[in-house]
Amino acid sequence: MRYLLIISYDGTNFSGFQKQNKGERTVQQELEKALKILLKQDVNVVASGRTDAGVHAYNQAVHIESNVIADKMKFLHSINGILPEDVKVKSIKKTNVHARFSAKKKTYLYKMYISDIDLPLYNYFLRIPKNCDLKLMKQAGEILLGEHDFKNFCASGSDVKSTVKTIYSIKWKKMREELHFYITGNGFLYKMVRNIIGIIIQVGLKKITLDEFKNYLILPYTEKHYTAPSKALYLYKVVY
Amino acid sequence: MRYLLIISYDGTNFSGFQKQNKGERTVQQELEKALKILLKQDVNVVASGRTDAGVHAYNQAVHIESNVIADKMKFLHSINGILPEDVKVKSIKKTNVHARFSAKKKTYLYKMYISDIDLPLYNYFLRIPKNCDLKLMKQAGEILLGEHDFKNFCASGSDVKSTVKTIYSIKWKKMREELHFYITGNGFLYKMVRNIIGIIIQVGLKKITLDEFKNYLILPYTEKHYTAPSKALYLYKVVY
Repeated sequence: MRYLLIISYDGTNFSGFQKQNKGERTVQQELEKALKILLKQDVNVVASGRTDAGVHAYNQAVHIESNVIADKMKFLHSINGILPEDVKVKSIKKTNVHARFSAKKKTYLYKMYISDIDLPLYNYFLRIPKNCDLKLMKQAGEILLGEHDFKNFCASGSDVKSTVKTIYSIKWKKMREELHFYITGNGFLYKMVRNIIGIIIQVGLKKITLDEFKNYLILPYTEKHYTAPSKALYLYKVVY
Repeated sequence: MRYLLIISYDGTNFSGFQKQNKGERTVQQELEKALKILLKQDVNVVASGRTDAGVHAYNQAVHIESNVIADKMKFLHSINGILPEDVKVKSIKKTNVHARFSAKKKTYLYKMYISDIDLPLYNYFLRIPKNCDLKLMKQAGEILLGEHDFKNFCASGSDVKSTVKTIYSIKWKKMREELHFYITGNGFLYKMVRNIIGIIIQVGLKKITLDEFKNYLILPYTEKHYTAPSKALYLYKVVY
């Protein structure tokens, strides 16, 4: 029997989602450890995709296979009692989907706050200065909509078949000092969202023009990378 | 010369705003200590009002008197370099107002999240269960609008001339799991917002009817107190 689990984690103290041999603490390892304690069997956790070290998740999707889960409410209560405080299971349901291969859309959220001073209460945000031009940033975002080759927004060292991805929507929400950036696409490359944010901020600061930004999508690889920190990035939603 | 400073702090590691003799860490002490280092004179910090232990502020207002502040931008930069990470000065301007006596309106924000499971990423929120009836909570909020005697919402031990306060507005913002409660009034008694939230949640849980809630405003003192925790309370705005 296959189950889809929606999980949430604070990535601060994790070396990313994926299991590692190096003995570093990862979300997958914590989940598999807790599942083994509860279900008394080895369970393989398959996620919609990995998230990098320090990246958080409001709603990461994973599937597991098990024939010993009887009561779903009891499972939730028990697994969350075993799991550490920084990773919890929000829901469980029977499924036919494959957490990774069936994922149709993903939304990431990047949280910024606008201030010339580092402010308390914004530990999980990236500060951007007041002279950052939000209108230019929004225009840069619009350039990304649709299907593009995002190879220049992908950290080197990644090993993927195709760097072509489709961005379905970008939404900005501003609430006083807070600026939330939501990006929805059919998939994201390694560090892609953080590179997008890093470069969009350069556009907002007028260090890169909109034309230069466009060129990031069509010109050959450039060495410059502006990678925004992971502490402000959240996997927000996975759609099947 | 009198200056109005807008300050922000994370209340987690403070024993409230107001200076104490007991040697506990307070916001006022940190501010006065930093001001003394920078201005080389004793400066008395007068706030719009104290906040309790654990309560945060996005925008607390304080005034100071000094004749040695020449460049306001330089002042901001220097004072924030001296202050610890959990309290910062956001702005400074010359003023004629008295931070406490001239305050016309204050807005507090209380942050909740709706979930039957304790979730990561919500350390500065109060969890309320899914069966909490938001419609009832909003109706309870409406009962509070206008001028009322809030003595039953005031923690015992407070020493004030009048417990009559006017609530100008209550706003609820729901964003997925997050529920933000904004309350604006001409002033607030000791623990008043936390008691309001505590009782409104009882209404949402149907442990207290709307009629009983109304009685909290008119009947004599009751021993029961439902004080919501300070970790989710933020002083949001002071209007002069």
